[in-house]
Amino acid sequence: MDTDLKTGRTDTFTHNAAPASEADPGRRDVLKGALLAGGGATAGALAPTLMSAAYGQAQPGTTQDHRNHVYLPATDRTVHWGYFSRSLKPVVEVDSGDFVTIETLTHHAYDDFERMIKGDPGAESVYFWTKDKKAVNRRGAGPMDASIHGRGAGEGFGVHICTGPVFVRGAEPGDILEVRIIDIAPRPCANPHYAGKAFGSNAAAWWGFHYKDLLTEPKPREVITIYEIDATGERNWAKAVYNYRWVPQTDPFGVVHKIIDYPGVPVDHSTIQKNNDVLKNVRVPIRPHFGVIALAPKEAEIVDSIPPAYFGGNMDNWRVGKGATMFYPVAVPGGLFSVGDPHASQGDSELCGTAIECSLTGTFQLVLHKKDRLAGAVAGLQYPLLETQDEWVLHGFSFPNYLAELGEKAQSAIYEKSSVDLALRDAFRKMRHFLMTTKGLSEDEAISLMSIAVDFGITQVVDGNWGVHAVIRKSLFAGAQV
Amino acid sequence: MDTDLKTGRTDTFTHNAAPASEADPGRRDVLKGALLAGGGATAGALAPTLMSAAYGQAQPGTTQDHRNHVYLPATDRTVHWGYFSRSLKPVVEVDSGDFVTIETLTHHAYDDFERMIKGDPGAESVYFWTKDKKAVNRRGAGPMDASIHGRGAGEGFGVHICTGPVFVRGAEPGDILEVRIIDIAPRPCANPHYAGKAFGSNAAAWWGFHYKDLLTEPKPREVITIYEIDATGERNWAKAVYNYRWVPQTDPFGVVHKIIDYPGVPVDHSTIQKNNDVLKNVRVPIRPHFGVIALAPKEAEIVDSIPPAYFGGNMDNWRVGKGATMFYPVAVPGGLFSVGDPHASQGDSELCGTAIECSLTGTFQLVLHKKDRLAGAVAGLQYPLLETQDEWVLHGFSFPNYLAELGEKAQSAIYEKSSVDLALRDAFRKMRHFLMTTKGLSEDEAISLMSIAVDFGITQVVDGNWGVHAVIRKSLFAGAQV
Repeated sequence: MDTDLKTGRTDTFTHNAAPASEADPGRRDVLKGALLAGGGATAGALAPTLMSAAYGQAQPGTTQDHRNHVYLPATDRTVHWGYFSRSLKPVVEVDSGDFVTIETLTHHAYDDFERMIKGDPGAESVYFWTKDKKAVNRRGAGPMDASIHGRGAGEGFGVHICTGPVFVRGAEPGDILEVRIIDIAPRPCANPHYAGKAFGSNAAAWWGFHYKDLLTEPKPREVITIYEIDATGERNWAKAVYNYRWVPQTDPFGVVHKIIDYPGVPVDHSTIQKNNDVLKNVRVPIRPHFGVIALAPKEAEIVDSIPPAYFGGNMDNWRVGKGATMFYPVAVPGGLFSVGDPHASQGDSELCGTAIECSLTGTFQLVLHKKDRLAGAVAGLQYPLLETQDEWVLHGFSFPNYLAELGEKAQSAIYEKSSVDLALRDAFRKMRHFLMTTKGLSEDEAISLMSIAVDFGITQVVDGNWGVHAVIRKSLFAGAQV
Repeated sequence: MDTDLKTGRTDTFTHNAAPASEADPGRRDVLKGALLAGGGATAGALAPTLMSAAYGQAQPGTTQDHRNHVYLPATDRTVHWGYFSRSLKPVVEVDSGDFVTIETLTHHAYDDFERMIKGDPGAESVYFWTKDKKAVNRRGAGPMDASIHGRGAGEGFGVHICTGPVFVRGAEPGDILEVRIIDIAPRPCANPHYAGKAFGSNAAAWWGFHYKDLLTEPKPREVITIYEIDATGERNWAKAVYNYRWVPQTDPFGVVHKIIDYPGVPVDHSTIQKNNDVLKNVRVPIRPHFGVIALAPKEAEIVDSIPPAYFGGNMDNWRVGKGATMFYPVAVPGGLFSVGDPHASQGDSELCGTAIECSLTGTFQLVLHKKDRLAGAVAGLQYPLLETQDEWVLHGFSFPNYLAELGEKAQSAIYEKSSVDLALRDAFRKMRHFLMTTKGLSEDEAISLMSIAVDFGITQVVDGNWGVHAVIRKSLFAGAQV
């Protein structure tokens, strides 16, 4: 059964599992079970989209009646936590042109269980952790026996709850996958006490740019701030609810986490001191987007979800919002598309280490471009490219493909070597290549144009592989013949 | 005689030299002479301002009938070239609240004499240079005998033609000077052959970020691109006219300049090869602004105009446009305000070393805030702060006061030590201070807010002391009580 997106009615969205089920009968059960379990308050009915109305319209002409539309809930069976892998079994398969609505969960939800997990079957299934059972055991790309730091399975070498992967039929290395972000909606709180609201967490954490540079005591410290968002869509800004200082938390397996060193550790609110006098009257405009939007890299069997690179990943660019389109080079068969790290808002640089980490549901259309028919902006693309309504945004990194560049220990070395200077160098080279190939400019033309009309900004300095984005407005070429 | 700004008629602007003349009879002659000589096609009549209509309105309530309005043309007697100095004799004195219209000349005008100098009495007087006479001899903060490199007087250690300084009566160290940019207009070409047009030059020069990282031969190379702007204001975009590769130029004193190592060297167009096939159909939106907008620093007798710092200077932020307001700490008596390095457009990072360097005329209102009555955003201000209609923009530098921080050889050391990482560190600290003092936030509140709502961008990486700006939207505090 196809879903008619043209009606704009989000409550008509249904899951068409047929194609995926044919390829893998077991998958149907996963999804069926997930749908029955429900995706929190959003199960079977996406939240209203008024909230993101400021983020532009979906591209016209992308909905056609013969496209499938798959609904992918977030459950313990549809997520992978803290890593990407070329060997992950896809949770769904689609054809080029199909739509996928994907629930994503923030990995900071346990900072406030009452507001971000309780009553939400999807979140409860993912976060389930008692002394006897941990629903999603691996969290990160580290060893399962936590033999390095003893933090927990996967060691928290990678932290993001990623929903997927989605296998795109026919996608092969060298192809380009286009991901159109049709819609983004906040995940309403499932706790009746907070009906109509959604919540997010901002952690000023040890990996933040500020951490060793604090003015006031106690130093150092990690601070969590909980933000409230209007899930009904009437309010386009977030407000702070309270904050608290992280104090050691003991996880259900008995490991003590003195700092925020492992994702999804339950925060026992009887141990913390809430400060409700926080950012009074400050309105934070929301910019809903996905911090992690990735294909699987080919270079390693299992890859930490934190450092972004050519395959996208944890780019943490707030421009990856409704109406935007991502383009990626496909590195492995099927592409293996995953989404996570949902943000209600973030500033360029993500200075303290996180954004407003807030569960969101996105609707995407996946369009495959085969390598023998590539042209225009996607020809020869070797990095994640973002197109918004008015701009092209190119992503530079300190190391564009750190997995290949930094040798066997790349996944630890990347945390020691980044700088904004290097990321600017990469962004410069990518923009030059883009202008010379896509727009047919000479090197001299490209360099002059970059200096007078391209804006370079600091995407993030907290994800191991630091990022600089280069923004060029499409209007520059509105009159161009090439 | 006062000028009535309220009429909006720019052709009624006249020079009120009386206050300045009383303090310094000699100054009247300077200004009178300048007015007689004319300021190019703009003498006595500012160019239409339609061009910058997109840059917002001047702040309401800033014009009052009892304010003086001084017109300061750019001539060989009203400019200082390539340096700032606490000891410069002011070319005009004003009271707090007065208006000053200041002509500024690009130091790249001699890249195309026909389009940017010829027929313009002001530009001709400043650029005048024959084997017998050089109207403005010192260009830069280096030795007058050019004993270091032999480039010319001042050695080109500093390159910008700065108009001023303007002495603000009553300004003392510790005070804050507010500079409101009421209007910006391009300087129309004075050559009848190009009537109605204005021109600028972009030099992809040896100090650019790209210079040692070129793809195509010959390497390295410097390339000049000439851009055309519509001086009538009907078109809000620039277009490229032609480009050429720099070849050695012999100045009137016989010094050969193999690279662009001294400002204002006449380019002999019989020696260059013009390429007219450049950036066809590309429209560069204009962002008229002043790259250099400065007070005099106190730390040294003569200071290179290139590295920006706490006193402003060569910030190269395109947001310093019409409708914006700068705030500076006053470091020396009178403040000694100068403006130069006019740009028609620039991207964040100014990657190749320059913008569209294009002569402009600005109208400013100067408002003095005495140190014993400072409050709000300006209390304790120790860096150049920019306010636009919707944003506060704070300027971070690799070294916030390199003159004091880098010792006796600061003015050469600064060129060896900059990085974007350091500038981001400074911008972070300044934004934290701003939020904690101006908005009364705790450090934890400030850090969280910075991560979710402040955008950090790369201002420039070509001015010795690299810059990162931090942008926060005023609307965040629209509902705030503090």
